Amino acid sequence: MPEFKAFLVEVTDKIARVVINRAQKRNAMNQDFWRELPEVFAFINDCKAIRVVILSGQGEHFSAGMDLSLLMQMASEFGQDALQNAEQLRQKIIDLQSAVAAIDHCKKPVLAVISGYCLGAALDLVCACDMRYASDEAQFAIREIDLALVADLGSLQRLPRLIGDGMTRELAYSGRLFGADEAQQIGLLQRTWESPAALQAGVLEIARQIAQKSPLAIRASKQVLNHAREHRIASGLDHVATLNAGLLQGKDPALAVRALMSKQTATFAD
Amino acid sequence: MPEFKAFLVEVTDKIARVVINRAQKRNAMNQDFWRELPEVFAFINDCKAIRVVILSGQGEHFSAGMDLSLLMQMASEFGQDALQNAEQLRQKIIDLQSAVAAIDHCKKPVLAVISGYCLGAALDLVCACDMRYASDEAQFAIREIDLALVADLGSLQRLPRLIGDGMTRELAYSGRLFGADEAQQIGLLQRTWESPAALQAGVLEIARQIAQKSPLAIRASKQVLNHAREHRIASGLDHVATLNAGLLQGKDPALAVRALMSKQTATFAD
Amino acid sequence: MPEFKAFLVEVTDKIARVVINRAQKRNAMNQDFWRELPEVFAFINDCKAIRVVILSGQGEHFSAGMDLSLLMQMASEFGQDALQNAEQLRQKIIDLQSAVAAIDHCKKPVLAVISGYCLGAALDLVCACDMRYASDEAQFAIREIDLALVADLGSLQRLPRLIGDGMTRELAYSGRLFGADEAQQIGLLQRTWESPAALQAGVLEIARQIAQKSPLAIRASKQVLNHAREHRIASGLDHVATLNAGLLQGKDPALAVRALMSKQTATFAD
Amino acid sequence: MPEFKAFLVEVTDKIARVVINRAQKRNAMNQDFWRELPEVFAFINDCKAIRVVILSGQGEHFSAGMDLSLLMQMASEFGQDALQNAEQLRQKIIDLQSAVAAIDHCKKPVLAVISGYCLGAALDLVCACDMRYASDEAQFAIREIDLALVADLGSLQRLPRLIGDGMTRELAYSGRLFGADEAQQIGLLQRTWESPAALQAGVLEIARQIAQKSPLAIRASKQVLNHAREHRIASGLDHVATLNAGLLQGKDPALAVRALMSKQTATFAD
Amino acid sequence: MPEFKAFLVEVTDKIARVVINRAQKRNAMNQDFWRELPEVFAFINDCKAIRVVILSGQGEHFSAGMDLSLLMQMASEFGQDALQNAEQLRQKIIDLQSAVAAIDHCKKPVLAVISGYCLGAALDLVCACDMRYASDEAQFAIREIDLALVADLGSLQRLPRLIGDGMTRELAYSGRLFGADEAQQIGLLQRTWESPAALQAGVLEIARQIAQKSPLAIRASKQVLNHAREHRIASGLDHVATLNAGLLQGKDPALAVRALMSKQTATFAD
Amino acid sequence: MPEFKAFLVEVTDKIARVVINRAQKRNAMNQDFWRELPEVFAFINDCKAIRVVILSGQGEHFSAGMDLSLLMQMASEFGQDALQNAEQLRQKIIDLQSAVAAIDHCKKPVLAVISGYCLGAALDLVCACDMRYASDEAQFAIREIDLALVADLGSLQRLPRLIGDGMTRELAYSGRLFGADEAQQIGLLQRTWESPAALQAGVLEIARQIAQKSPLAIRASKQVLNHAREHRIASGLDHVATLNAGLLQGKDPALAVRALMSKQTATFAD
Repeated sequence: MPEFKAFLVEVTDKIARVVINRAQKRNAMNQDFWRELPEVFAFINDCKAIRVVILSGQGEHFSAGMDLSLLMQMASEFGQDALQNAEQLRQKIIDLQSAVAAIDHCKKPVLAVISGYCLGAALDLVCACDMRYASDEAQFAIREIDLALVADLGSLQRLPRLIGDGMTRELAYSGRLFGADEAQQIGLLQRTWESPAALQAGVLEIARQIAQKSPLAIRASKQVLNHAREHRIASGLDHVATLNAGLLQGKDPALAVRALMSKQTATFAD
Repeated sequence: MPEFKAFLVEVTDKIARVVINRAQKRNAMNQDFWRELPEVFAFINDCKAIRVVILSGQGEHFSAGMDLSLLMQMASEFGQDALQNAEQLRQKIIDLQSAVAAIDHCKKPVLAVISGYCLGAALDLVCACDMRYASDEAQFAIREIDLALVADLGSLQRLPRLIGDGMTRELAYSGRLFGADEAQQIGLLQRTWESPAALQAGVLEIARQIAQKSPLAIRASKQVLNHAREHRIASGLDHVATLNAGLLQGKDPALAVRALMSKQTATFAD
Repeated sequence: MPEFKAFLVEVTDKIARVVINRAQKRNAMNQDFWRELPEVFAFINDCKAIRVVILSGQGEHFSAGMDLSLLMQMASEFGQDALQNAEQLRQKIIDLQSAVAAIDHCKKPVLAVISGYCLGAALDLVCACDMRYASDEAQFAIREIDLALVADLGSLQRLPRLIGDGMTRELAYSGRLFGADEAQQIGLLQRTWESPAALQAGVLEIARQIAQKSPLAIRASKQVLNHAREHRIASGLDHVATLNAGLLQGKDPALAVRALMSKQTATFAD
Repeated sequence: MPEFKAFLVEVTDKIARVVINRAQKRNAMNQDFWRELPEVFAFINDCKAIRVVILSGQGEHFSAGMDLSLLMQMASEFGQDALQNAEQLRQKIIDLQSAVAAIDHCKKPVLAVISGYCLGAALDLVCACDMRYASDEAQFAIREIDLALVADLGSLQRLPRLIGDGMTRELAYSGRLFGADEAQQIGLLQRTWESPAALQAGVLEIARQIAQKSPLAIRASKQVLNHAREHRIASGLDHVATLNAGLLQGKDPALAVRALMSKQTATFAD
Repeated sequence: MPEFKAFLVEVTDKIARVVINRAQKRNAMNQDFWRELPEVFAFINDCKAIRVVILSGQGEHFSAGMDLSLLMQMASEFGQDALQNAEQLRQKIIDLQSAVAAIDHCKKPVLAVISGYCLGAALDLVCACDMRYASDEAQFAIREIDLALVADLGSLQRLPRLIGDGMTRELAYSGRLFGADEAQQIGLLQRTWESPAALQAGVLEIARQIAQKSPLAIRASKQVLNHAREHRIASGLDHVATLNAGLLQGKDPALAVRALMSKQTATFAD
Repeated sequence: MPEFKAFLVEVTDKIARVVINRAQKRNAMNQDFWRELPEVFAFINDCKAIRVVILSGQGEHFSAGMDLSLLMQMASEFGQDALQNAEQLRQKIIDLQSAVAAIDHCKKPVLAVISGYCLGAALDLVCACDMRYASDEAQFAIREIDLALVADLGSLQRLPRLIGDGMTRELAYSGRLFGADEAQQIGLLQRTWESPAALQAGVLEIARQIAQKSPLAIRASKQVLNHAREHRIASGLDHVATLNAGLLQGKDPALAVRALMSKQTATFAD
């Protein structure tokens, strides 16, 4: 098991728990965080024993967002030529966007577990997860507007697909805090629990359910859902037809049907 | 009126009722079902007396989904060459997808009326309808994951447009049952009623309302909405401008305005 | 300040209030309205003192929709050649669509404030605004179907992105009235208040919040959100990276960070 | 072997020759033609012995285009309601377009062999083929403009992808005749021969080459090329990766490599 | 007939000749040019007597491109805030792009007639025309790279659709001059003539041919071709089916068929 | 300067020469090649001294394509589970595609210089370059069909944009060799020379021209051209407007204009 500075990673019973590990700084995302994020998900992609991922924050908060010192460092590196600066900043932003996209492209489902603050870049992050769960006291905000910036790590692209265009605009323009209750009602969260502990237990149960399914079928489902998001319906149907034509000949469906008939639970190989 | 094995079809007062007719097998979708489905909707398309369609299941359940014997038959036809098998399976899946798309392409609105089970392929089916209504005891699930397969008849493409990306993923990965209440809250259902009888009566009332409108305008609306789903806003606006430029010169708008002025109800020709 | 026939326009504290000014006709949209609508938003675009726009209707109703006399006049201009008529009507519809799009393309956020009726073309109008707020007695309908027409000013394109495809179809086919409560529940409205007065006060407060943010960042956010609506996620991310690379070098982020550190409110230049 | 009225169909050595069989009418496309065209290609799709298709015209000309009597019959069926007429005509055009698309969707490559006239709808037809070959005296034109119509069976959509946007416009607006020489120079034709006989022999040789390749790989190539035409590069690459991952495990690549090593010609199963 | 400073506009026999009128400055595009360009094409759009447009330059050259003084003036208006400058420049570029797009959106075909220089912005301009014709001594270049800029008025978007991606890149990166001969060979020009006089006569003949066709059908063809450029084949086919369903019922096709039968030339109304 | 096994990399006068360095194996692409290809272009991206790239093959041939031993090794790694194999192969193909895309995404123009064989994967490779130049004896083929495979590294996606859809199909189905002459005539090559030596000299001259331009403007041009390839015209215009608004304020345009005025050559900073 590789070791990370900004994350704790632990694998039990086919489930990887990835924990942002800077509780003393409200898990603010620093340079270590951004460098290691793609490494964590590369490890998860390659590790056959992992079927589902739970992403959470150490301590009270999921994450208060981008570490301000990182922004300041960027600013301190500005040269005199505004255009050269712009080209470098653009590349830097693209690098951060790619780090977030590592979650999106991870072959296995990623479940975000949110307590406390989930602000700014942290909101971008959970929007790239497959599902989002929170405890009642969780708080969200598109913080970037209060830094006179535009959220640039995916919130403005992914939120409209989750909560609709109108709500995204109110939250993006006002930067206001909103709670778990509202977050669930507008569709950002799949479910909420009354306490962080109940949340942890609840999501673990969902992860266990998913971990029992055929891992090939789960990975194929994520691939199809990612494809569906960016293609017309007809194109998506063609894609899933090609994929299922392969899956149907595999061992898992036969196993599954047999288990179903005998009212038992199928156990699928990794 | 043509006769079908897997369906009862009845036309009264401009409304076609299409009932899946295998109550003894929970309306599981067998070969007859799939062969006849496009025929039913070809008939509906051509029959001028029909303005709206209500699709439901005979007996307690809408449908428990794909008939397992069909899957098994597919498996039994496998030859030794995995690639030839894959090519055939792909074609078979595309044929089933086309059958479902017959609802989507039907020129007249199709209203799904759901009691009891609506599982797997049945959920794919109702997602291709224009609207979905259910009684409180109805139950839904993306069942395919429990067969170690990916839902391949449209749920994964159409659900995100109805209930958002996050919720679709939870349901697709977990395969869990969800009730009418949750289904309405996440946006899958347009309305629910407390009993199957109330549901039937409620949807009939909605169908009657729609049947009174100008049938040309209703068909044009469905065409525009199908177009809007797959094109940019500007492209959709251009399309509806071309269409309405024709409609505005027809007899129905004049009739409608006259009725409105005299506070009467207009009666439109088929 | 330019003067308009169909609108009252007033600018206070960085906020423009645009009021449809035909209360005696329930603010029905006549020729003046359509000619002036793009002029109003051209003025707003160019006026540096304006950062947010509130759009409402004078008197009891937001607007009862298209003035019927306008439709009748169009009909009275028909020549004998159906095709020439169609070409002219198409152009006329495209001109109205462009007037509505002036709101969509306005660089500054536009907040719709809705009391009483918001019917037909008025619904098309508010769908092109950034956010929508209403008082409890407000009533909405896609009225065009009762004129034997298809809604052609954007509702059928924009509503599915706000309230989902299924709900849009029910409302488009049935033309039924729906209240503020249902409108909020399905996602059309961002928030509701119990009375028109409370609504006015509530939205003013939101507008004030937005007016305090960096106007460059607000305009850039709207540009990014408009872009996100019509492009793939990856394309949207590339776009915002290019934009923020410029913004980050501006004066406002530095100002914002300094204010944040000293727990004060930043004041941004126009 | 099924029999057709408007076509001669013959299969020899894995190659189907489809010949339009109305030489006395310059192979003008009548009702038989349009009804049978999809049937011919359905047969070809299902017939495993066929690997390549050659499409040509009996006698001197490929085809002079749509049979005018068909257009006149359409016109004679007009009712009094212009809108009802329009809806029926639209459906009729869509049916003809689908007949042409049967060539596009045919799983096996279709080679057009053109002598003499290839006008109007005949040009639409050959644009839906995979490749186009002609003899020097062949003549082409987008004829529809001389009927005061727009070419509506695919030329205006497919030609810009073959000969560029500018050339398509000159030919569409002027309706002028152009010869094989110009047709090859602008990219419409893959090759020309000096006489119809030489053309027949030349294309037969190309068809034979293709018929010797792995039929699975040929069909997969056509599927990938059709996909590439309508998707971004990245999406097309993802598609071909999924497909080749299956192909690579088949028998044909092993066979091909062995043949290559031993400098022999591989013989692939149907 | 309106009068313009930067253009001579003349209408004879259904053909509008638009001549850039700054021969003494090699027809360099100054502020008058850009302000009047959309006005010229608005006039052409509305003038029923015009069916085709010929666009050329007064004197020896088509145009040497953007007037440098315009660029300098832009630079002189820069304020101190780089971001405010950027926002203004962006708007200015968008305004120029819209002026060019007036040709693209003109309902009637526009034929570019090119002698002498056609450099920089002039090349952007002719790429927005329907067809391009030149005399042998004409010379072209993507000049912007020699100003350390990117061509921003459409060449980089439209050229790849005319001459392919590879050739566009060589010309964009090198900025080199290329002659009429090469321009025709790579597909930029539809035809060339040996002298400016022969060119004028040749294009006039083409314009006359087009002016004799049904003007409704010509306008519809341009609309379909513009649509085809930005949509999938299936979407384009659907569009043309809707349009032709209207056209087929018009007077012109009947007139055309009658003329064809009697081997006469049909004369269509404006 | 980093060292590579499969490549020679040399930088002189702002120009990087990248030479495939396995002449004894006709530069067949082995594991070293694929691993190092992205590393080479990462180095080029970061090295400010490099403005243009020339890609060629050591010795007589550009490259004979994929090293067969690589394909065999892939086959030897197959496990028993066809689906697991497919998933691994798919990933492997995606990795190779990404290596090719490193050329496409390289910020600086890449010029392919082709002598001798350019077969199979080598053709995929040069299609991802900006421009392609060859000597007369060069020979090309889409070789994959003779391995019973589909070309999967980009040819089938990129060739239709360079040589049209019809020609791509003939070459993909037949796998036939074609020479430099035909390659230029169909648009694959930008130019040809009579000998490898003349080719080298000729392309060096073009590279030198490009290296003298403003490097910021060249990189921005490539970015715009890559964007144009995958977006609608309107979206591409918006993108270039945003970009040029930044460029116009830089030092290079001022420098360029001054040089132009004084008829001198501007020298731009890296």
